[in-house]
Amino acid sequence: MLSKSLEFLFNPESVAVVGASENPTTYGYSFMQHLLSYGFRGRLYPINPRLPEIAGVKAYPSLEAVPSAIDYVIHLIGVNNAPDVLTQAARKGAKAVHILAGRAGETGRPEGKKLEAEILKLAREYGIRVLGPNCLGVFCPKTGLSFGFDFPKEPGKVGALIQSGGNSTDLIHIASLRGIRFSKVVSYGNALDINEIDLFRYFIDDPETEIILSYIEGLRGDSREYLKLVSEAAAKKPVVILKGGRTAVGSRIALSHTGSLAGSVNLWETAIRQAGAVPVKNLDQMVNMAVAFSFLPPVKGKNVGIVGAGGGRSVLSADEWEENGFTVPPLPRDIRENLKRRGSQLWDWLDNPADISIMPGDPLTMTDVLSEIVAHPVFDFIAADAEEDPPFSKDAFIQHLTEDMEGYIKIRQQSAKPFLIIFDERSPGIKEMDSYIHRTRAELRSLLVREGLPFFPSVTEAAAAMNELITYYRRREEKTLR
Amino acid sequence: MLSKSLEFLFNPESVAVVGASENPTTYGYSFMQHLLSYGFRGRLYPINPRLPEIAGVKAYPSLEAVPSAIDYVIHLIGVNNAPDVLTQAARKGAKAVHILAGRAGETGRPEGKKLEAEILKLAREYGIRVLGPNCLGVFCPKTGLSFGFDFPKEPGKVGALIQSGGNSTDLIHIASLRGIRFSKVVSYGNALDINEIDLFRYFIDDPETEIILSYIEGLRGDSREYLKLVSEAAAKKPVVILKGGRTAVGSRIALSHTGSLAGSVNLWETAIRQAGAVPVKNLDQMVNMAVAFSFLPPVKGKNVGIVGAGGGRSVLSADEWEENGFTVPPLPRDIRENLKRRGSQLWDWLDNPADISIMPGDPLTMTDVLSEIVAHPVFDFIAADAEEDPPFSKDAFIQHLTEDMEGYIKIRQQSAKPFLIIFDERSPGIKEMDSYIHRTRAELRSLLVREGLPFFPSVTEAAAAMNELITYYRRREEKTLR
Repeated sequence: MLSKSLEFLFNPESVAVVGASENPTTYGYSFMQHLLSYGFRGRLYPINPRLPEIAGVKAYPSLEAVPSAIDYVIHLIGVNNAPDVLTQAARKGAKAVHILAGRAGETGRPEGKKLEAEILKLAREYGIRVLGPNCLGVFCPKTGLSFGFDFPKEPGKVGALIQSGGNSTDLIHIASLRGIRFSKVVSYGNALDINEIDLFRYFIDDPETEIILSYIEGLRGDSREYLKLVSEAAAKKPVVILKGGRTAVGSRIALSHTGSLAGSVNLWETAIRQAGAVPVKNLDQMVNMAVAFSFLPPVKGKNVGIVGAGGGRSVLSADEWEENGFTVPPLPRDIRENLKRRGSQLWDWLDNPADISIMPGDPLTMTDVLSEIVAHPVFDFIAADAEEDPPFSKDAFIQHLTEDMEGYIKIRQQSAKPFLIIFDERSPGIKEMDSYIHRTRAELRSLLVREGLPFFPSVTEAAAAMNELITYYRRREEKTLR
Repeated sequence: MLSKSLEFLFNPESVAVVGASENPTTYGYSFMQHLLSYGFRGRLYPINPRLPEIAGVKAYPSLEAVPSAIDYVIHLIGVNNAPDVLTQAARKGAKAVHILAGRAGETGRPEGKKLEAEILKLAREYGIRVLGPNCLGVFCPKTGLSFGFDFPKEPGKVGALIQSGGNSTDLIHIASLRGIRFSKVVSYGNALDINEIDLFRYFIDDPETEIILSYIEGLRGDSREYLKLVSEAAAKKPVVILKGGRTAVGSRIALSHTGSLAGSVNLWETAIRQAGAVPVKNLDQMVNMAVAFSFLPPVKGKNVGIVGAGGGRSVLSADEWEENGFTVPPLPRDIRENLKRRGSQLWDWLDNPADISIMPGDPLTMTDVLSEIVAHPVFDFIAADAEEDPPFSKDAFIQHLTEDMEGYIKIRQQSAKPFLIIFDERSPGIKEMDSYIHRTRAELRSLLVREGLPFFPSVTEAAAAMNELITYYRRREEKTLR
């Protein structure tokens, strides 16, 4: 079973860092810091011919000088040294070598291709699996492996196989701000040995991974086997695939990035979709899908109940949901009657979207109105706007936004109706970072993350994610019924 | 000339605030604060029957008790009091009354419509212009009028007529973070008297306004006159129009928001476009257009030179520019020869997009490569990526990002080539607000704002704005040639 054979990538008992260093501008420094700060519990062997100790850990001049066996070697020196390191690693019984350096096959130069062929030949000969070259390797918070300084340390249920190192770092950063936590992320680069097929096979069976994300520039394995695996995966858990190199130019760049031949774009998207996975076009969309699949139950239909915004934003919100294929039904007559019975003076004026700015003075609050909407069967899900900046002074501003958000959290706890929030992103300058407006918004985003409430930066992005979510669950239901 | 007659909205010599208050949760408090903190220099008369002084300014029990003439009355009490206030204002020689309160025509109730008719009749009779009801009024930083607590105080060249109060506040907040500054923003609500026709006419002639933004739910004036004015405006300065109520549902909500009848959507967009204005679908797109028109020279063509990202982001960036109708030409042969001559080892490997992650160790820097690209006539404009989060430790992270951005600023100062930056937005939680990563990003955004460098949150949004920018200048050139 190849699947089992990748477990050592995530659970090594001993790790050697070739090129470990005390110079903070090097990967050799970074990876030592990661292994220590994320809490790797196995044996750790920094390899450096000139230093007796690195980051407080006894160092060795070479792999061969290490007194015991080594499971996993992180190779952080030049790619030309890889054959030699492989040979030494084989003597220490290593099961896997991660080669970080690039300038191999992806340069398009003959010497790069030749070097890769040599590395692969040795790996096969020694029975060692190679991750890379040209990749950042493994992030596995549970066992303390990482390739970034500020990734979330709590494990989660999202697994990712990402061909690009930069995109893997970006993905983790962007997703973590929205509450996503990861089981394992693998940056696998040129995929000389371990490729998308191996990784998909692993993630399909991995009980710690409930959602699979993948960025891929080009297939290394057999395309029919790949699609079969994607299909198998998508039947078990949501799969989101971002194809890099969709255009002629993008694919020219992919060739020089990870040495990938991209293949026909339209075929790709059609095939991915037929396999039941969700194709996306950029990392933001990928994160939106991860948020939707992580924090929302299956959504059955396209009737959306909208609350929380003032008049102008309510108008635009209704427009954008409708333009994206959703239905914004008028406030049902029985809700109006309930509102009237409960003493609202606005029962005839309020609608869906429910305009929050007309509520002041009414005996009912927005939460009262929202509880009626949440309970009504005509609405398949609720999209609440984090109120636009109200024109109030500091204390009133903080109170309003906080009360809205706490109302949403409470209602969401009381009801099983799918509930999402539109919370627009605004990148503040340095002065604004310390203003109460941006700090309040940040506090509330942290609150939503803690509560596991999904939020999206705009209606357009939320609507795209909801469309895919609904398609996914409908498809799965149809398959089950057949 | 009606155009001149609106000048008093922005340059009143005296302002009375009816409903001025010391209770910080009221508009009466807010507007007093605004007039004082934005530096209004005319005479200021708080009106409140119970307090002798408000915010340190002598108060009067009624408009009639004020000893001298009043130019402009800000009416912050219930809309039912408007007829009475108008009558008093007339006796003090007022030229304009801003009625903030809603619950007038937009409720859809007969009494609301009746009240509006009465207000309009009195206004005509007294020769007073009415702004509102149901709107936040005037933001004019130059003369010290505002309706928000934290709007930028420096005047700028963007003017806006925004039918919704919430959308006007949002617009100012979102745009100011991207470096936009305003000449005047008018939130005009139900447009009972002063409407889109008056305001367009004013902004066309206003020498302080170089770009016009408009959010409109429904026309109050004659549609033929409106389109003629838009066309006249667009021939003089860029005009961006966001129509609220584009769908049946949106237009139902617009009716209850500002009492607007929306009209046919397709006709709208076609007519707006034929008039030479840019139609947009949400506030983010509106801000993107304001940024493009404010900080970019006319752009002639669609060949884009891309720098600054690592491999994976470069691939996706090329894909998204191409998918949005742009061309990403390969690195021209003469640039390769220059790079080779200048000693680069990467002359055959580097391409467009130029992958920054392969540069380390090369004698040439990204800035050297960028200077070649900027100088080459094949490229119509440059899109630089603010580098994705590099996997470095704190000091290296800060140094890398800062050097990149300073390089961009330097090159942009040396060259007339249109230059924009992709700087993705990520809303941090409260913990991240104080992390070096988010503070560095905020510092750099502030730097870009100070330098007047346009940045966009994604390739997709930048590409949409550039498409419209190019269309606008082509159209204007064609018109001039005819």
